[in-house]
Amino acid sequence: MATTPPGSPAGSGQQGAHQGAHPHPAPRHPRLDPLADRYAARTHGMKTSEIRALFSVVSRPEVVSLAGGMPAVTALPLDAVGSMIGDLVSGMGAQTLQYGSGQGDPRLRERICDVMALEGITDASPSEVVVTVGSQQGLDLVTRVFVDPGDVILAEAPSYVGALGVFQSAEARVRHVAMDDDGLIPEALEEALVACRAAGDRVKFLYTVPNFHNPAGVTLSEPRREAIMAIAERWDLLIIEDNPYGLLGFDREPMRALRARDSQRVIYLGSFSKTFSPGLRVGWVLAPLAVREKLVLATEAQVLCPPSLTQYAVARYLDTQPWREQIKLFTELYRERRDATLESLAALMPAGTTWTRPDGGFYVWLKLPAGLDAKLMQPRAVGAHVAYVPGIGFYADGSGQEYMRLSYCYPEPDQIREGVRRLSRVVEAELDLHSTFDKVDTGTFRAIRPGSGHDAESMVGPANSDTYEDGR
Amino acid sequence: MATTPPGSPAGSGQQGAHQGAHPHPAPRHPRLDPLADRYAARTHGMKTSEIRALFSVVSRPEVVSLAGGMPAVTALPLDAVGSMIGDLVSGMGAQTLQYGSGQGDPRLRERICDVMALEGITDASPSEVVVTVGSQQGLDLVTRVFVDPGDVILAEAPSYVGALGVFQSAEARVRHVAMDDDGLIPEALEEALVACRAAGDRVKFLYTVPNFHNPAGVTLSEPRREAIMAIAERWDLLIIEDNPYGLLGFDREPMRALRARDSQRVIYLGSFSKTFSPGLRVGWVLAPLAVREKLVLATEAQVLCPPSLTQYAVARYLDTQPWREQIKLFTELYRERRDATLESLAALMPAGTTWTRPDGGFYVWLKLPAGLDAKLMQPRAVGAHVAYVPGIGFYADGSGQEYMRLSYCYPEPDQIREGVRRLSRVVEAELDLHSTFDKVDTGTFRAIRPGSGHDAESMVGPANSDTYEDGR
Ligand SMILES: Cc1ncc(COP(=O)(O)O)c(C=O)c1O
Ligand SMILES: Cc1ncc(COP(=O)(O)O)c(C=O)c1O
Repeated sequence: MATTPPGSPAGSGQQGAHQGAHPHPAPRHPRLDPLADRYAARTHGMKTSEIRALFSVVSRPEVVSLAGGMPAVTALPLDAVGSMIGDLVSGMGAQTLQYGSGQGDPRLRERICDVMALEGITDASPSEVVVTVGSQQGLDLVTRVFVDPGDVILAEAPSYVGALGVFQSAEARVRHVAMDDDGLIPEALEEALVACRAAGDRVKFLYTVPNFHNPAGVTLSEPRREAIMAIAERWDLLIIEDNPYGLLGFDREPMRALRARDSQRVIYLGSFSKTFSPGLRVGWVLAPLAVREKLVLATEAQVLCPPSLTQYAVARYLDTQPWREQIKLFTELYRERRDATLESLAALMPAGTTWTRPDGGFYVWLKLPAGLDAKLMQPRAVGAHVAYVPGIGFYADGSGQEYMRLSYCYPEPDQIREGVRRLSRVVEAELDLHSTFDKVDTGTFRAIRPGSGHDAESMVGPANSDTYEDGR
Repeated sequence: MATTPPGSPAGSGQQGAHQGAHPHPAPRHPRLDPLADRYAARTHGMKTSEIRALFSVVSRPEVVSLAGGMPAVTALPLDAVGSMIGDLVSGMGAQTLQYGSGQGDPRLRERICDVMALEGITDASPSEVVVTVGSQQGLDLVTRVFVDPGDVILAEAPSYVGALGVFQSAEARVRHVAMDDDGLIPEALEEALVACRAAGDRVKFLYTVPNFHNPAGVTLSEPRREAIMAIAERWDLLIIEDNPYGLLGFDREPMRALRARDSQRVIYLGSFSKTFSPGLRVGWVLAPLAVREKLVLATEAQVLCPPSLTQYAVARYLDTQPWREQIKLFTELYRERRDATLESLAALMPAGTTWTRPDGGFYVWLKLPAGLDAKLMQPRAVGAHVAYVPGIGFYADGSGQEYMRLSYCYPEPDQIREGVRRLSRVVEAELDLHSTFDKVDTGTFRAIRPGSGHDAESMVGPANSDTYEDGR
C-alpha cells in the first residue's frame, strides 16, 4: 500500500488547503479532516483496517503467510489463457473493449447455468443470472436491494469478513447464529428467529456459506440442509447462499445447493474467483426474475456494466479450455496443502488447541487454548515470521478472540509446515506467559452460541472495526 | 436482452414456487413479486427502464442510432492491444489473474497522475488516487461516502443520466442548476445555494461535468470556472468534477480542471472509457487523503478490488503504446462526425429547432420546436429507423420533454447524415400534426431555469423513472 511520504504534494496539499484563487484563512486544525462533518451516516462506521500494516509484513519473503485467501493461480495454463485472451481482443475488440449489457454477456450467463448444474441447480435460466464484479459485488447488490438501516441480517458465527463489511456499510444489524462441525445449527437459527420476532426486528435474510465455510472450514450436512429449508419455509425466510468454494471438495461430488431445493426462497451467489481467476473479478447472482430486475437496475447505477473483456475471457475459457480438469488439479493441490496443515497441527500444536478439518476449500479455523487471544498474540507471531487472520474480524460483535483463520490455499506444503512450526512455538510461548492459568479446553470446534446469557451483546450495529478486508 | 420465454424453466419456476421438500399452498397471485414487501426503501424508487425496448430496436441494422454513447473502439490498434494483453497474462499471470489492492495497482495510479497533468493537475499524488470500475463506480462511491437519504445534490440541468441513477439509489434529492452555452451559470448556482440555505437543506455537493457535457455538449468557460470556484470557497461547497471527455477537445488544448484550482474542495472523477476502452471499465477518483481513505473502505466492501487484468492492461497501454496519438486520432474521427451532425442539422432541421455546438466530446443537445415532445415522438422516430435519447431522462424533475440527445460518436458520417435526414422528416411530420399551434421558438440553447416560478417542482426525490441507463 502506498502511503504519502511526509513531504509529498499530497501531504503538503492537505496542510495548505485553500491555496486556490481565493485566499482564505488556514483551517485551525490542518491535520483534521475538513470534511469530517459531511460524511453520510454509513461512513462513520468505517474504520481503517489493520490489514494494511499486516500486508506489508505478509509480503516480506521471510514471512510464511497463512493469512490471505489468494488462490493458486499459477497452477493455471498461463500461456493458453494468455493467447486465448489476446485473441479475444485482436479478433473481437469491437465487443470485448466496448460497453456491454448491465446484466452481463448472454453467452456467459448460459455457461454459468451449466456450472451451477454441477451442484444440482438444473432449472436456472440465463435470464435469472446477473453477472457481477466478483461475488462480492453480488452480495453488495443484494444487500442494497433488500436492506434498510437497522434491518437485521442473520449470519453464521463466524462469518466471511467481506460480508460483514457489506452489511456494515448498509447499516444493518447482524445477529450471529451458532454453527458447529456440521455447519449452521438449525435449532440456533430457529431460536434467533424467535428472538427477533419477540424483539420486533425486521429480519431481511439469512446469509450463509454452506460449503467449505470461510473462515470456519466446515460444510452444512445434508440433513441440516433439509432442516434449514424447512425452517425457511415455515418462517418465510429469504436465504442468501454464498457459494464460491462448492466445486472445491476433496473427497466427493459437490453437494446439492440450497438453491436447488427452492428457486424462490434462495438467492444464490457464485464466483469464478476460486475455480478460475480472482483477478478477472467475475461472479454472479442467480435470483427470481423480479429480484433480478432490481439487481440489474442496482448494478447499472453502480458500475453501468461489468467489464466486457473479463466476461468474454471467462466464457471463452469455459468454452475452449478443460475447466473441469483444471478444477480437479486445483483441488488436488489444495488437498495436499490441507493435509500438510492438518498433519503439522496435529504433530506440533500444544494441547488445548483445536481446529476444524475441512474437506474442501481454503481454510482451517483454529481455537487457541483457553486464555489466549489471537489478536494480542499477533505481534509475537509476526516477529516469528508467521501470519494469520485473528478471529475477531469474522464476528460483528467483537467476539472470537480465541480463534484464528489459517489459509492453506497459497503457500507450498513445505512453507505450510514451517509456518505451523513457527505458529506452534508462538502459541507455546504465549501459554508459558499464561501458565498460571490452567484452564485448558480440549474440545473440538463446537457450537459457540454468541451472546448466550447476555443477549444484548449478540446483536450489534456495525461489523467489528478490526475487520480484515483481505480475509477472503 | 434475453427475456424468459413463457415456457422456460424460470417462467414456470416462478409460478411453481414452494415446490421444495415442504409443500405449501401456492401464493394467491403467482405473478406478483412475493418479495415485494421486503425491499429496501431505495429499491422502490427504481423502475424498469425503457431502454431495454429501445435497445432491441437500436441494434437492428436498419436503424441509425444516435442514442448510445459508445466510443469508436474499432479505431484502436486491436492487434497490438491484443498481443499486449495476451503477453500480460502469459508473462505475469501471478499478478494479472490474482486479487490486487482495493485502492488499485500502484503503477497504474502513477500513470493516472501523468494523464491528469495534461489538464493542469500537477500536484496529485498516486496515494490520493483510487482506481474504480469505470468512473461510474467512482461516482457511486463518492455518493455513498457523503450522501444520506434526503440530502441535496446540486447538478446541472440537464445532467448525465447515470449520475441521476446513482443519486436516486442514494435517495438524494437533486436540485438542478441552469446552464447555457458556456456551461453552468454561476448566478444560478448561487441562487440555488441561497434557496437551499433558506429551506434548511443539507447540500452535500455540486456535481458537474465541465467539459463537453453529457448530454448538453457545452463546456464551462474559463471565467465561469473562476466564478464557480469563488462561490465554492464562499459557500464552503464541495465539488464533484466528472471529466471523462476533457481530453477529447477538437480545436484546442485541454482546459484547466477545477481540481487544478483547489485540491481540497474538488473531488475529481476520471475514466479511460472514452480515451481508450470502456469494456475494460477502468476509471478513478482523485480525492484528499482523508476522503480517499473512506473511498477505499467503501470500494473494498463493494467489489474487494478492481479487476487486476484490466488495470495492468491500461497501465501497460500507457507505458508502451502511443496513447496521445491515439487520442488525437479519436478526436479527429469525432470531429468529422460532429461536423456531419451539425452540417446536416443546419441543412435539414425545420425552423424552430435549435441545438448546441460542441467543440469536443460525443453529444449534441437538441431542442424541438415549441409544442413537440421528444418522448412522445419516439415511436414515430423508431418507425422511421432513427433513434435518440429523449431529454427527460436527464432531469430528475420530469422536465426536458422538448429536448433530445444526439450522439455522434459511434455511427459513420454517412450514417449520421442519413439519421439526421430521417429525424428531420419525423420532426416535420410532428410539426404538421401540431401546425395549429404556431409558437415557434428560434432561440439557441439558453438558460433553462428549472422550476422558476414554481419552486416546489424544482427539487424532487428520485430521478425521473424514464431514465435511460445507456444514456452514457
Ligand atoms: C465466502 C466468500 N464469499 C465471497 C467472496 C468474494 O469473492 P469474489 O468477490 O472474489 O467472487 C469470498 C472471497 O474470498 C468468500 O470467501
Ligand atoms: C459524464 C459521464 N460520467 C461518467 C460516465 C461513466 O463512464 P465510465 O463508467 O465508463 O467511466 C459517463 C459515460 O458516458 C459520462 O458521460
